Amino acid sequence: MKWLEDARRGVPPSRARWRIVLHEVIFEADTSAGKGFDVLLIASILASVVVVMLDSIGAVRSHYSSLLYGIEWFFTIIFTAEYLLRLTCVGRPFKYAVSFYGIVDLLAIIPTYLSLFLPGSQYLLVIRILRILRIFRILKLVAYLGEARLLMKALRMSGRKIAVFLYTVLTLVVIFGSLMYVIEGGANGFTSIPRSIYWAIVTLTTVGYGDISPQTILGQTLASMVMILGYAIIAVPTGIVTVEMSQAFNRKVSTQACPECSAEGHDVDARHCKFCGAAL
Amino acid sequence: MKWLEDARRGVPPSRARWRIVLHEVIFEADTSAGKGFDVLLIASILASVVVVMLDSIGAVRSHYSSLLYGIEWFFTIIFTAEYLLRLTCVGRPFKYAVSFYGIVDLLAIIPTYLSLFLPGSQYLLVIRILRILRIFRILKLVAYLGEARLLMKALRMSGRKIAVFLYTVLTLVVIFGSLMYVIEGGANGFTSIPRSIYWAIVTLTTVGYGDISPQTILGQTLASMVMILGYAIIAVPTGIVTVEMSQAFNRKVSTQACPECSAEGHDVDARHCKFCGAAL
Amino acid sequence: MKWLEDARRGVPPSRARWRIVLHEVIFEADTSAGKGFDVLLIASILASVVVVMLDSIGAVRSHYSSLLYGIEWFFTIIFTAEYLLRLTCVGRPFKYAVSFYGIVDLLAIIPTYLSLFLPGSQYLLVIRILRILRIFRILKLVAYLGEARLLMKALRMSGRKIAVFLYTVLTLVVIFGSLMYVIEGGANGFTSIPRSIYWAIVTLTTVGYGDISPQTILGQTLASMVMILGYAIIAVPTGIVTVEMSQAFNRKVSTQACPECSAEGHDVDARHCKFCGAAL
Amino acid sequence: MKWLEDARRGVPPSRARWRIVLHEVIFEADTSAGKGFDVLLIASILASVVVVMLDSIGAVRSHYSSLLYGIEWFFTIIFTAEYLLRLTCVGRPFKYAVSFYGIVDLLAIIPTYLSLFLPGSQYLLVIRILRILRIFRILKLVAYLGEARLLMKALRMSGRKIAVFLYTVLTLVVIFGSLMYVIEGGANGFTSIPRSIYWAIVTLTTVGYGDISPQTILGQTLASMVMILGYAIIAVPTGIVTVEMSQAFNRKVSTQACPECSAEGHDVDARHCKFCGAAL
Repeated sequence: MKWLEDARRGVPPSRARWRIVLHEVIFEADTSAGKGFDVLLIASILASVVVVMLDSIGAVRSHYSSLLYGIEWFFTIIFTAEYLLRLTCVGRPFKYAVSFYGIVDLLAIIPTYLSLFLPGSQYLLVIRILRILRIFRILKLVAYLGEARLLMKALRMSGRKIAVFLYTVLTLVVIFGSLMYVIEGGANGFTSIPRSIYWAIVTLTTVGYGDISPQTILGQTLASMVMILGYAIIAVPTGIVTVEMSQAFNRKVSTQACPECSAEGHDVDARHCKFCGAAL
Repeated sequence: MKWLEDARRGVPPSRARWRIVLHEVIFEADTSAGKGFDVLLIASILASVVVVMLDSIGAVRSHYSSLLYGIEWFFTIIFTAEYLLRLTCVGRPFKYAVSFYGIVDLLAIIPTYLSLFLPGSQYLLVIRILRILRIFRILKLVAYLGEARLLMKALRMSGRKIAVFLYTVLTLVVIFGSLMYVIEGGANGFTSIPRSIYWAIVTLTTVGYGDISPQTILGQTLASMVMILGYAIIAVPTGIVTVEMSQAFNRKVSTQACPECSAEGHDVDARHCKFCGAAL
Repeated sequence: MKWLEDARRGVPPSRARWRIVLHEVIFEADTSAGKGFDVLLIASILASVVVVMLDSIGAVRSHYSSLLYGIEWFFTIIFTAEYLLRLTCVGRPFKYAVSFYGIVDLLAIIPTYLSLFLPGSQYLLVIRILRILRIFRILKLVAYLGEARLLMKALRMSGRKIAVFLYTVLTLVVIFGSLMYVIEGGANGFTSIPRSIYWAIVTLTTVGYGDISPQTILGQTLASMVMILGYAIIAVPTGIVTVEMSQAFNRKVSTQACPECSAEGHDVDARHCKFCGAAL
Repeated sequence: MKWLEDARRGVPPSRARWRIVLHEVIFEADTSAGKGFDVLLIASILASVVVVMLDSIGAVRSHYSSLLYGIEWFFTIIFTAEYLLRLTCVGRPFKYAVSFYGIVDLLAIIPTYLSLFLPGSQYLLVIRILRILRIFRILKLVAYLGEARLLMKALRMSGRKIAVFLYTVLTLVVIFGSLMYVIEGGANGFTSIPRSIYWAIVTLTTVGYGDISPQTILGQTLASMVMILGYAIIAVPTGIVTVEMSQAFNRKVSTQACPECSAEGHDVDARHCKFCGAAL
């Protein structure tokens, strides 16, 4: 277990030849073997998620129960082997194990083993769908990764404002929910404050199931206020995200003026003035 | 079938006099004959769509079944003749046949013939409504076409970001749907994972039919999270589209490439290439 | 009826002294008499709308039927007299009669007379609420009028794009509605194409009553697509209106450069350079 | 009661040593005692809100009624003592009492006393949740306070436009509600105009409970128009808030007034008044 010790100490192990080849096949997608492995992997993941979904449909389960059970274990054992291989051939197994993909890979096999003790937990296997996120990296969909990063950046930049907004929404639903509990009471479905808060969320977000709805005039008046409020304040997160995105996406315009004609408004990557052609 | 051969080879056929006249009447709207044809066509399309809708109402069908059946065949034969005429008089019939309008024109007559074998498929005739899109071109609503093109451009520019967003939404509804299936179970209406995913879509998009709604405290808590999430992330596509529209409507980028270095993306008022300084 | 003839010919009548005074009281709000009249008018309008609403509540009507009936006629006669007075004292009665306010004033009295022949039409009296729009002018809420005008301008500017969007939405609901009618059929509530189109509108706009909802797997899949589509394309009108508003509201920046220091970016109302103080 | 007199006259009282210490502990969070007090306070508030919520759940109340009743009074007495201490040690008690936090602190204890006369009013104690707003100040979440202030500023700037929008929405729901009352009538659930207006709000805001929904063809047609209207005009507040936020987040306007002409609204980088040219 020398390599494990090395990894723990952060020292890259002197890697054996077979581990380098394995790494190339499993982690990279430049060779044809690597590409084949990745396509096979994605197909397996999709197939296993479909099996979990089919297993949850009563009519299917009653007929093919043991078949689906077998397939489920088949995929789980495959993915377990793959997880162990990844741990073996990667340079720093600990770093991989605690990375996003490492955790998802682990979570994607645990539920089957867990279902031996906790029946029903095998349905959590759909978390395997997250493994598909790898598809962007594998298929060299770099442009999409760039877009995703831009979106994440804009959302992170608006994080604090969104937090303030969410805090306000939570305060509002607690207060409106409690008011409705006092006004409507249990007879009209508002049986407790938590349930009334649930109603307030359903209403403020304009979902409106209709499983609980106010019956008294006063309750309907208050509900109308909650609806109009929810209808109007959706403008707040929208505004926040739009402004941040606008800043995150926008083409940068240089502040540099042309030394010849003093024209401004050049792009940051411009090397010549777009009006007189002088070098910037 | 020489013209068909020609068209297949991409050679414009030497068109007979009657075909040129027919083309002007059917495809153009500059002459009074052409304008009259187009107005008649749009009226026929609208009338035939109304007939299909009336035919679907039980009370109407039971009384006027054969009349509506007759009208339907009448319009279908008219439109079939028109489709064949279009194929005949157009310069390159294959290009027309595989164009957007050519396919719509074909789809607009198929369902009636299909209904001889598959009863019920005649209701797909409403696809004829798509033929009305021609109205913009016919009535010289050029300004509207320009606006539509601008909108399409903004949507195409935001296509990748929207794709990333949709992928995220799909992953979310699969995971939330499965969680709800485990939490609520079949007794509360979440009878399978696909059905639970359907519920997750109904909730995340704030539609909220209420045909399936969580009954347990844990389920209602998770549902609340899904609602608030759906309420907040609507800001993401809105932000994306707003920013792209803002750029599509405002920024004028020339389509001119530099004659020296072939670089593109110059502003419309640029007189020199911003990369090499060559005159544009 | 000389003044009527004059008005018809567009000639301002030589107005008698009493008509000038009346005009000042009824149409203007500068004198204390005019202000008093306007406040009284708004109070009457609100009172009459409340009476109409009360009259529509069964429990109230059964007890106070004749009282409410009396009040209704009282207000109607008052408003009729006021309408005639307005016609009398205004310079060009025909221009007033066909103006927005003139039509609203007329519509606000007709339903009561109509209810003699068509019972139930008196409830249309709530159109009187539109008369309240006058409040902005009367109470000199000029700033609000300015904002309203800005909003109207932005909406008018985005009118064509919104029209293209609405046309697309209508085409989509017709096609999706018909598809659902074929898929689900009358047994699941989709009893006709118009009713299925109604369902498609309820779903695409994310209202989601739940009075009609798909039962088959295929129907739920298509419904999911409609929901996600409706959830995403709300971004289109939002983006359009935001961009147009941004242009309508934005502070104009002058393109003028300072003659002394060449600084740019001055406001259009600036008379001095904000950096060196030189006159612009 | 000399200090009370002083406070009433706006004179800062000569404060005793113990009151200064108390003020530091209760109002400030710089000392470890002050920080400890604040953390304890927030924990107490959260605990008391949870108790109120638990008390509202029938199953819990039936078993632990007297325990919860005791805890409720315990917290109320604690908070009452804290409120009196705050009044005692603050420099200007009247100013504190009428400030936002002062009023919330009072409202947070009143319901318990009120519940002696009005059973059920103790559920209004959830207003205590508003006291948590203090957490931002206490925990030095200054950055979040800044963001909240920016959001408030943007909302205040768009206040008038939002008011015009809300007025339009209210006018629309009154008119649409009344129309639906006339069209559908009491048999289909539209039992009165106020109830129909409630339906119009539920529909226009796209909440869509489904407790009232149109049954006639004409009613469904009108409802479809209301839905599409509601779906489209959400763009208006969103556009307003986005534009104002864009200006509030981006444009830096100095608060400095010109020493010569008192004009305001100068840019932060301005060194001269843009109206009279005087140095700022």
